[in-house]
Amino acid sequence: MAGTKISYRGDMMPEPTLRRLPWYLAYVSMLRARNVEYVSSTAIAKEINVEASQIAKDLSFLNIRGKTRIGYAVAALERVLRSYLGFTSEHNAVMIGVGSLGRALITDSGLTRYGLDIVAGFDVNPQVVGRTIGNVPVFDIAELPKMRTSFGADIAIIAVPVDSAQEVADLAIASGAKALWNFTPFRIRTAEGIVVQNTSIYAHLAVMYNRLNSLNPD
Amino acid sequence: MAGTKISYRGDMMPEPTLRRLPWYLAYVSMLRARNVEYVSSTAIAKEINVEASQIAKDLSFLNIRGKTRIGYAVAALERVLRSYLGFTSEHNAVMIGVGSLGRALITDSGLTRYGLDIVAGFDVNPQVVGRTIGNVPVFDIAELPKMRTSFGADIAIIAVPVDSAQEVADLAIASGAKALWNFTPFRIRTAEGIVVQNTSIYAHLAVMYNRLNSLNPD
Repeated sequence: MAGTKISYRGDMMPEPTLRRLPWYLAYVSMLRARNVEYVSSTAIAKEINVEASQIAKDLSFLNIRGKTRIGYAVAALERVLRSYLGFTSEHNAVMIGVGSLGRALITDSGLTRYGLDIVAGFDVNPQVVGRTIGNVPVFDIAELPKMRTSFGADIAIIAVPVDSAQEVADLAIASGAKALWNFTPFRIRTAEGIVVQNTSIYAHLAVMYNRLNSLNPD
Repeated sequence: MAGTKISYRGDMMPEPTLRRLPWYLAYVSMLRARNVEYVSSTAIAKEINVEASQIAKDLSFLNIRGKTRIGYAVAALERVLRSYLGFTSEHNAVMIGVGSLGRALITDSGLTRYGLDIVAGFDVNPQVVGRTIGNVPVFDIAELPKMRTSFGADIAIIAVPVDSAQEVADLAIASGAKALWNFTPFRIRTAEGIVVQNTSIYAHLAVMYNRLNSLNPD
């Protein structure tokens, strides 16, 4: 990740702020596509349901200043946000579990646009091992230890059945993974110092079904 | 959603509880696969990093009781959780935006196992309109108003570029959508009474990159 030092300020940013920045990025990307030149925190607040003072505070972590009465230059704000969020750097990752979801994530070119380069897949299924999915070669899980040495990957994406999640996580960490992106609903335990992000797609469904059902109790 | 009345208790459950239940489900599914018969909230707590008292409280919302010293019957707990979470019912949904991510979600058979049935796709791109992706027909977005009438879908999944997110959300609601599952990082505004779940896959990347960078500041 050489060259990203300047745009990151690492551990200074609180996680809630970090989670809001992509919302601002999405909004200013839209403004730029519409050729809007300047935007104020008040204008962003109107669209995004976050207080203008909070937005100004969040953006104060970045290397950009708004102008009084005019606001932030849209193109510059988009560029700074994208870089700060790490979307302009390349981060190598491996996919552990090349079933339905793993394959879907490999073929989602959106991840590449957000700086994630899936360089190899690992699985136990002899029907996928040895194959190539969207340019990504799939290896036997036994070869995972080469994720860092051969592929320079810091990030392991976990898309295996829940009952294998902890086991492959342990193996990934032993193989040098520094971050796990966990797509299973299993709560993976790790030693301190390993970054874990949980994206449990299916758990969001449960909340949606429950709230839908409250709307239509009969 | 006829027949699901008994297993839901709708609006009584707080969202944090609802979000934890899938973790418990994942864990007990694993136990069942390993032929474990009983599990206590203390044993779940050890694996999942939630206090045992909180787990007991969360599970008290369900129609199941643990036995003193023995705990919950694993198979029954799994069945009750799966049903309560709505994963055993069928919920029709349409996919708006059949680009890379939309297509990936359509072909992810995991969603079906969690009760989501994607019955149609909608897009503006003439290269995908009229095609069928994994048994799912793709229509022009102009035909979205038939999502409820022809397809009985309450749920619209939004996987379009950010600058179209609000527009297609408005169209989906006008077409009868009661819930939006938003995969864009755009913060969609809706009237009260519409269920919105945000799953911004790419935003999780930002947190992961930032934390990784804090580990390796140089």
